[in-house]
Amino acid sequence: MKSSKPLEGLKVLDMTRVLAGPYATMILSDLGAEVLKVEMPGTGDDSRHFGPFKNGRSLYFLSINRGKHSMTLNLKTDEGKDILRKLVARYDMVVENFRPGVMEKLGLGYEELKKINPGLIYAAASGYGHSGPESKKPAYDILAQAEGGLMGITGWPGEAPVRVGCSIGDITAGLFASIGILAALHQRNATGLGQKIDVAMLDCQVAILENALARYQATGENPEPLGNRHPTITPFQAYQAKDDWFVVAMGNDNLWKTFCTATERPDLAEDPRFATNPARTENLEALNALMDPLMAERTVQEWSELFSEVGIPHARINKVEQIMKSPQVIARNMLASVEDSLAGTVQVAGNPVKMSGFEDSTERPPLPELGEHTRDVLTGLGYSQEAIQALQDQGVI
Amino acid sequence: MKSSKPLEGLKVLDMTRVLAGPYATMILSDLGAEVLKVEMPGTGDDSRHFGPFKNGRSLYFLSINRGKHSMTLNLKTDEGKDILRKLVARYDMVVENFRPGVMEKLGLGYEELKKINPGLIYAAASGYGHSGPESKKPAYDILAQAEGGLMGITGWPGEAPVRVGCSIGDITAGLFASIGILAALHQRNATGLGQKIDVAMLDCQVAILENALARYQATGENPEPLGNRHPTITPFQAYQAKDDWFVVAMGNDNLWKTFCTATERPDLAEDPRFATNPARTENLEALNALMDPLMAERTVQEWSELFSEVGIPHARINKVEQIMKSPQVIARNMLASVEDSLAGTVQVAGNPVKMSGFEDSTERPPLPELGEHTRDVLTGLGYSQEAIQALQDQGVI
Repeated sequence: MKSSKPLEGLKVLDMTRVLAGPYATMILSDLGAEVLKVEMPGTGDDSRHFGPFKNGRSLYFLSINRGKHSMTLNLKTDEGKDILRKLVARYDMVVENFRPGVMEKLGLGYEELKKINPGLIYAAASGYGHSGPESKKPAYDILAQAEGGLMGITGWPGEAPVRVGCSIGDITAGLFASIGILAALHQRNATGLGQKIDVAMLDCQVAILENALARYQATGENPEPLGNRHPTITPFQAYQAKDDWFVVAMGNDNLWKTFCTATERPDLAEDPRFATNPARTENLEALNALMDPLMAERTVQEWSELFSEVGIPHARINKVEQIMKSPQVIARNMLASVEDSLAGTVQVAGNPVKMSGFEDSTERPPLPELGEHTRDVLTGLGYSQEAIQALQDQGVI
Repeated sequence: MKSSKPLEGLKVLDMTRVLAGPYATMILSDLGAEVLKVEMPGTGDDSRHFGPFKNGRSLYFLSINRGKHSMTLNLKTDEGKDILRKLVARYDMVVENFRPGVMEKLGLGYEELKKINPGLIYAAASGYGHSGPESKKPAYDILAQAEGGLMGITGWPGEAPVRVGCSIGDITAGLFASIGILAALHQRNATGLGQKIDVAMLDCQVAILENALARYQATGENPEPLGNRHPTITPFQAYQAKDDWFVVAMGNDNLWKTFCTATERPDLAEDPRFATNPARTENLEALNALMDPLMAERTVQEWSELFSEVGIPHARINKVEQIMKSPQVIARNMLASVEDSLAGTVQVAGNPVKMSGFEDSTERPPLPELGEHTRDVLTGLGYSQEAIQALQDQGVI
């Protein structure tokens, strides 16, 4: 019984750019909301100009903005502000990721906008948040990863720090902002009132540190990066096979015995240094002196076949090419296609929130050209063709 | 005008353990939902037995389960299943992170439970999802990070792969599951009907790959790990100061000029190899041959003062100890305390979703002992003290 997407009928005014904000509105869009991007005339969202490009189209921009609508609006003009206020009266949500204070300076802060629409849900994603002594510092993903602690526990001990390979600072801010928006929506269904949601990249990094805070408090020592291994389970890490790296994860002593039997290494099974998980963790170096050459004897494919047969958890360390061919990824509809007027067919990540209430499509509506929907939106607000032309001549749209 | 938390009045039946599921129900709890953990008599959530410990208390478990209620229930017994069905009739949501098929084998799959409560929102978090050829493979965070591609783009090119220092596979599954639950809640407010949400760690990893899919499609080459630098902006990376590593991020040519002036290095400013951002990225190696010794001349504190003065974005690579003292982290209420009967006062991560509708508290209710609320819950279902005693004698609770 597939019916409709859960957020159908909701209208989002999307004043975001680059990543954290657009990621949040992409999630809302994938769940059925109608999203209107409000962009600066001429330039639009900065990320329209970010590589990688294909036939002049930013695939960066396309990946997270497909299916949204776009209108241009210069918010520094009085007419632009007027139009925005008219839209706010008709929309359910505003999402923005300006530096804190920018919307207030424009006269468009939450306190102003809620006077126009008390039901408005207003979500702000920023680097350091809308309060605190460092609120207005410039923010980039790498700064949040560094200050928030994730960089300090990622990489190899004693070596150069490593940044997580995706902009996890921006993305987690987008995810928590979405959660705040939807929680506020539930409350609004009861009260009729909206509220402001203020999500900081820095806060989100602290929120995902997992047991690092606990480890510090238990031991008084700062958690250090661990490369690719598990702190207390062994072997549970990446090894280099004959042809490539891969991961094995033996979560208990039975799996270790299975491994020793399957690899025909009774010497490992009988070695008291490796008899229990705590012993293996304690003697990690000695263990890996034996594991490394053993793992190098066969290819990832050969190990994969053996380990699948005997039930030892393992995984390839996939490159993007392999992910795009993965039967499981494809079966889960995690690759969706966008037909783009310039770039042709582009694959983007699917929606990981699979809900029984609606059919999970592998097609996404196309990317909006900058300002593609400006005229429609203004006509909907009651502007005449002449008035729209005048706004264009004045650089308002 | 602070009123109530957005999810107050909602009741969550929490059949989760370890991380992805408990992380989702922690978010729901922080936003006001009442969460009842259903745990196996005797052992409970596996992570009650995971380190780090303080006075015998698992701080791992405490960090993400504070404030929930706990009842014991052996779901392999008929009486246990009966009690669960009675609870399902009275609860808004079930969240579970068993391996796909486990709930069905118990006779407690979504299709069964929705017959009891058509409004039930049922969220399942798993490694590979409830569909597809690899659905039932065992899953750990490190396997999702490896197969989902994040590990393949994190670390240093040509070196051993790096696992992100927190369990980002589990955590993103918890975040997307929360989003699905809240979206379903909005729809239920209109239709009265619940639905099943199926979130896979693997899918979530693909969803956070950011521009990696785009880069592959634009160039035909697999994105490689980049250590700690930005792919196309330079300098935008970690450098080693006299005493420690830190991050600088010069997003444009003006900042580069500011940097050269502030560090009194006209030679860098005038070098045509470094005149524009594309040139600096192209000549990264030559640039860093000059940047590395320059950055090593002063301490992080000295650089921080200079860069703050002239407006160059930069950040310390904080250890946990520094995060726990950070004025911004503290001002944002991102450290909350739990008073625990065994471990004393423990700091846990606060809620990063700041909402104007309710006061953001820095206190969290205590951790439930295993089965602390069993009697209350059963009494609420109408069980007599004798009946409860009998259930206990039979090992049902």
